[in-house]
Amino acid sequence: MSGEKINVAIVGASGYSGEELVRLLLGHPHVNLSVLTSRQYAGQAVTSVFPRFSGHAGASDLTFSEPSIDLLADKAQAVFLALPHGVAAEFAVPLAQRGVTVIDLSADFRLNDANTYNEFYGTEHPAPEWLPKAVYGLPEIRPDAIANATLIASPGCYPTSILLPTIPLLEAGLIDPEQIIADSLSGVSGAGRKADVAFLYVECNESLRPYGVPKHRHLSEIEQELSLANGSPVTIQFTPHLVPVNRGILTTLYLAPASGQADDFAQWTDAIADCLAKRYADEPFVRLTSSGRLPDTKNVTGTNTIEIGWAADPRTRRLRVFSAEDNLVKGASGQAVQSFNIRFGFDETAGLPI
Amino acid sequence: MSGEKINVAIVGASGYSGEELVRLLLGHPHVNLSVLTSRQYAGQAVTSVFPRFSGHAGASDLTFSEPSIDLLADKAQAVFLALPHGVAAEFAVPLAQRGVTVIDLSADFRLNDANTYNEFYGTEHPAPEWLPKAVYGLPEIRPDAIANATLIASPGCYPTSILLPTIPLLEAGLIDPEQIIADSLSGVSGAGRKADVAFLYVECNESLRPYGVPKHRHLSEIEQELSLANGSPVTIQFTPHLVPVNRGILTTLYLAPASGQADDFAQWTDAIADCLAKRYADEPFVRLTSSGRLPDTKNVTGTNTIEIGWAADPRTRRLRVFSAEDNLVKGASGQAVQSFNIRFGFDETAGLPI
Amino acid sequence: MSGEKINVAIVGASGYSGEELVRLLLGHPHVNLSVLTSRQYAGQAVTSVFPRFSGHAGASDLTFSEPSIDLLADKAQAVFLALPHGVAAEFAVPLAQRGVTVIDLSADFRLNDANTYNEFYGTEHPAPEWLPKAVYGLPEIRPDAIANATLIASPGCYPTSILLPTIPLLEAGLIDPEQIIADSLSGVSGAGRKADVAFLYVECNESLRPYGVPKHRHLSEIEQELSLANGSPVTIQFTPHLVPVNRGILTTLYLAPASGQADDFAQWTDAIADCLAKRYADEPFVRLTSSGRLPDTKNVTGTNTIEIGWAADPRTRRLRVFSAEDNLVKGASGQAVQSFNIRFGFDETAGLPI
Amino acid sequence: MSGEKINVAIVGASGYSGEELVRLLLGHPHVNLSVLTSRQYAGQAVTSVFPRFSGHAGASDLTFSEPSIDLLADKAQAVFLALPHGVAAEFAVPLAQRGVTVIDLSADFRLNDANTYNEFYGTEHPAPEWLPKAVYGLPEIRPDAIANATLIASPGCYPTSILLPTIPLLEAGLIDPEQIIADSLSGVSGAGRKADVAFLYVECNESLRPYGVPKHRHLSEIEQELSLANGSPVTIQFTPHLVPVNRGILTTLYLAPASGQADDFAQWTDAIADCLAKRYADEPFVRLTSSGRLPDTKNVTGTNTIEIGWAADPRTRRLRVFSAEDNLVKGASGQAVQSFNIRFGFDETAGLPI
Repeated sequence: MSGEKINVAIVGASGYSGEELVRLLLGHPHVNLSVLTSRQYAGQAVTSVFPRFSGHAGASDLTFSEPSIDLLADKAQAVFLALPHGVAAEFAVPLAQRGVTVIDLSADFRLNDANTYNEFYGTEHPAPEWLPKAVYGLPEIRPDAIANATLIASPGCYPTSILLPTIPLLEAGLIDPEQIIADSLSGVSGAGRKADVAFLYVECNESLRPYGVPKHRHLSEIEQELSLANGSPVTIQFTPHLVPVNRGILTTLYLAPASGQADDFAQWTDAIADCLAKRYADEPFVRLTSSGRLPDTKNVTGTNTIEIGWAADPRTRRLRVFSAEDNLVKGASGQAVQSFNIRFGFDETAGLPI
Repeated sequence: MSGEKINVAIVGASGYSGEELVRLLLGHPHVNLSVLTSRQYAGQAVTSVFPRFSGHAGASDLTFSEPSIDLLADKAQAVFLALPHGVAAEFAVPLAQRGVTVIDLSADFRLNDANTYNEFYGTEHPAPEWLPKAVYGLPEIRPDAIANATLIASPGCYPTSILLPTIPLLEAGLIDPEQIIADSLSGVSGAGRKADVAFLYVECNESLRPYGVPKHRHLSEIEQELSLANGSPVTIQFTPHLVPVNRGILTTLYLAPASGQADDFAQWTDAIADCLAKRYADEPFVRLTSSGRLPDTKNVTGTNTIEIGWAADPRTRRLRVFSAEDNLVKGASGQAVQSFNIRFGFDETAGLPI
Repeated sequence: MSGEKINVAIVGASGYSGEELVRLLLGHPHVNLSVLTSRQYAGQAVTSVFPRFSGHAGASDLTFSEPSIDLLADKAQAVFLALPHGVAAEFAVPLAQRGVTVIDLSADFRLNDANTYNEFYGTEHPAPEWLPKAVYGLPEIRPDAIANATLIASPGCYPTSILLPTIPLLEAGLIDPEQIIADSLSGVSGAGRKADVAFLYVECNESLRPYGVPKHRHLSEIEQELSLANGSPVTIQFTPHLVPVNRGILTTLYLAPASGQADDFAQWTDAIADCLAKRYADEPFVRLTSSGRLPDTKNVTGTNTIEIGWAADPRTRRLRVFSAEDNLVKGASGQAVQSFNIRFGFDETAGLPI
Repeated sequence: MSGEKINVAIVGASGYSGEELVRLLLGHPHVNLSVLTSRQYAGQAVTSVFPRFSGHAGASDLTFSEPSIDLLADKAQAVFLALPHGVAAEFAVPLAQRGVTVIDLSADFRLNDANTYNEFYGTEHPAPEWLPKAVYGLPEIRPDAIANATLIASPGCYPTSILLPTIPLLEAGLIDPEQIIADSLSGVSGAGRKADVAFLYVECNESLRPYGVPKHRHLSEIEQELSLANGSPVTIQFTPHLVPVNRGILTTLYLAPASGQADDFAQWTDAIADCLAKRYADEPFVRLTSSGRLPDTKNVTGTNTIEIGWAADPRTRRLRVFSAEDNLVKGASGQAVQSFNIRFGFDETAGLPI
């Protein structure tokens, strides 16, 4: 399909994820950006809201529209939703019903179980009958399902940083599912472009703070996917922290050997290294850091790459695994475009900086 | 009066200037903080809103109140107003009428002319009859008037950084009043603690931008005071920029010799240096940087000190004068406390970090 | 001893810890700063190197000296060493031998065992006979020993943030000593004021990175002190991260119930809260955050306070304990002054911002 | 020449400008990166020094070499020099003599006059006979000379931000050449990747400071080019400031009407706007901000675009013109690639983000 162009819409194009989608899709060789919606900026030229895009050939004609199901279904074969949870479902369901491919960056269709949604998001799920039809869109883990999906629920930023290093190890039975700890640091763009005193420059600069413990919303999808990989329920400790960078998530995972793996520590760590190396050998967006180097977010910001590295600790017979990603790219918009590429049969890397 | 304690109130104590007043006045040897008001936090303990203050002996009993003229007049001999312009006058006038000393950090009583207020603030002045009674509270320039004032209009952050270096030079007839340019960089706390997308961490970090040209509101008081120093009207160019620091203003002034001063450049620059050295020899909060060193905001943040330095340019026969201050201390709350000290006869430096 | 002034020297006064000692001791009511040494700046006025201090009465006469044992022993009753490990011992031993009280901020006398020093610092200990005489100077844990010490080894920044929350819980037998994980974020001043590309602004800004795993040097003293509290050897996982702030350490501790404590989770968490509340009820520099609030470094920067908070996780039956400190104050220079206060019988808070 | 690939070398590829050249040239459709030299990293894989580039097809085979004229002349048709001044000439001259196209990012061949070089750089010019042959490579100003040059002296970061807005106005006789003031803010990457305490994170974060007055080295090339545009010598005031961002230069220009232009202010400002609009109508990398919006570095970082905007000030009858660029792209490496594109007949935008 390499010569083809797909008409694509972005709903909620003026938040940070939406803006990043605009950036990526304006440069995508197989995309014609046909509709951008924003309630706040409806009627305004995209380049007046985002001067950065003025130089892009495709941007000068674009104007933000009011969101409308009819308009979207009429003008787009694929629609990216960069909306708050709850709101996204109002678009996802009617669009999917009309056969439009929906790539939803919200949490609305990430969970298989409506009760879990209720528990973590504090509200009834708006369309539980669609939960079984949606695909949790981690491209490295579930490419075939993504290729055939109508409704792709693109994962959250923290879950991506935690699941990619952990799922292969759980599937291989190498780590103890009862002793997983995920400690994550996130840049402030993760909080979205919303007027909130807590995310003012002065409140975040020169500040380091944990939040969202013990039950950050992302924990629900993290545990769901880890449980699927494990074959039985997994409960973990997850601690997000807010730190003063614009972009980037750095996750530190504390892992212990599965029972039966604990006897020979060196053998276990070799098995871990082999497992990740094999699993991700052909994945263009997963970069395993070589021995002695640990991930650093500045190596990946602006790109769809996730760096994964590890350090064995013979003293405690435990392993630390680290991952670094750009929360707005691999953790959100880039990964969504990656799923789009898979869904429409394009090269997985089309339009995506590595 | 060294043993005395004055009962002091802060109205609008939960913004950045208000919080800084709390910090300074909690440590002030002659102040008993009797009332703190905040509409937003009324009823809450001060230490629950500002955990930083928990260790201060005086803070643990303080609770934010709803603002009330009766309460303030009853409980305080001096009231600091850290309120938006327009709102401040609603407190300043009735409190001053009851004989309470008012130190107003807003712009409401900085201008002598109600028409200028209208021009720059876009609204009728709420109490023009009080303009002649208020004192523009630059402690280094007008200490006697401050000592006897009931209503002190504490200067804005940019004006302080521009006026202190310039007024002595204008008064001495050393610089050309028609060729003054003030180029200023400000940290983001200058925008206040208000929920506004423009001041989110992500919008300010890695961003450098001018704003407020050509008629930033502070220009009105800058030109008023320069005109007074000059003896006739002065019009200047003033360009504020927003840069990613929490605190600090760095001002670069471009100055030319007054007519009659242009013939001997070396003599002129010596006269400039002498003028500033003499004027500020005994001022505890003005630090002239020695030859070869230029001001840097990191030398003054957290303190009430303003650094002033200069560099002569024989090639253009012009002078650059630089100043660095903490916009929340010398540019706002510290300077207000300095005026309070003068007004109540305390040592000018009481409670103020140098 | 409240009216007394002690003659105090700082060796290595031009690094970040040294500069912070100068700041604190210039404002200390019972200190006369008699000697400041710096090989790099010997002969220069202190205020020319650190313009910030120009306003301090005591600073204007101070000039950096070349370090000399004779000079120090002659002029100072107490000497703070802010030197690299290995170098500190060259001053600590002869000064202590002459009866001068030495407060050493380096690692040279923190460890009881010279072999551990060799293992973690990669060099023979220069004066192993002094190890048993030195006191590991955590003021909240070992005040009596500090009060009588000649050689006080002031703890490292990370250890302080980890030990203060953990030692009481270990001593009370509440937590499992085999399952302690400490995950820490540090500002860049922790790396010292040394010319190193890795700590340039551009290399640290917009970067999040782990380092020093699995055997950061501070691990040696952390485990030593935890083992003492536990009564038997403790081995932990400790992961430091470098994040872009000037100052601050935020530590997240993952803790599990001791055997015998695991049956009733609510009772266990209550016991934890009680234990910390009782232990630190009268400590001026330990602030337990109230329920629902978690520590944030911006609440403590510039002060000697450490905030400690916690969040129980009934799902995993584990506890997260958080601490926030200023790495240069409570984590280094402030804590050293706190030990000095105890040693010389002054109020523990003298000269220290809370 | 669209199908052709040019063999290109970068000398000094491990500094910030060099790294940025690697980034841009790895993605350039007409470039084969054949040699990268770095004395410091000779023998190491490029991707081990710069993990960011690991995903680029061309990067995995690249290893840093020791710099050698023979190697470079043998393997490259074009050589970019990202070296300190003085060192660059040692490569530029022999390579140009052998017919290799040299694009020099240093200052060595920017000045027409060896005496001016001596005055501003404090050393004899190493190859004054080459000064008349070199082309000052501002692509928007001198495209034809660049197209035919063997030795292109790519402009400095500050000069680019000042010259592009000013040259057209001087050439059109619209502004007074005797009253030009350029006030610039630069991110820290402008100082280069060199171990220097002044550029440590802690020294730059929360700091605003002027430096390099009155005779920053870049002033020499700025005045040279302004003088050429003016037809007679121009002397200006230029004040650089260091501010805490990684990338970006924001320049504020204070301009006055030329004699004969001062009578009708509105007409003058219209003429200014027309002049810039016409001059840059077809330039892909110059973006004039529309009325009411002012340049912001965050709109251009990572791209080769320079934003130019202005604000008239009827009160003072002066104009402020602002420009924003990425100092490493339009201010250094991107502009150098732009010149390369012109020299080799490629589309001017090839390989360059807009």
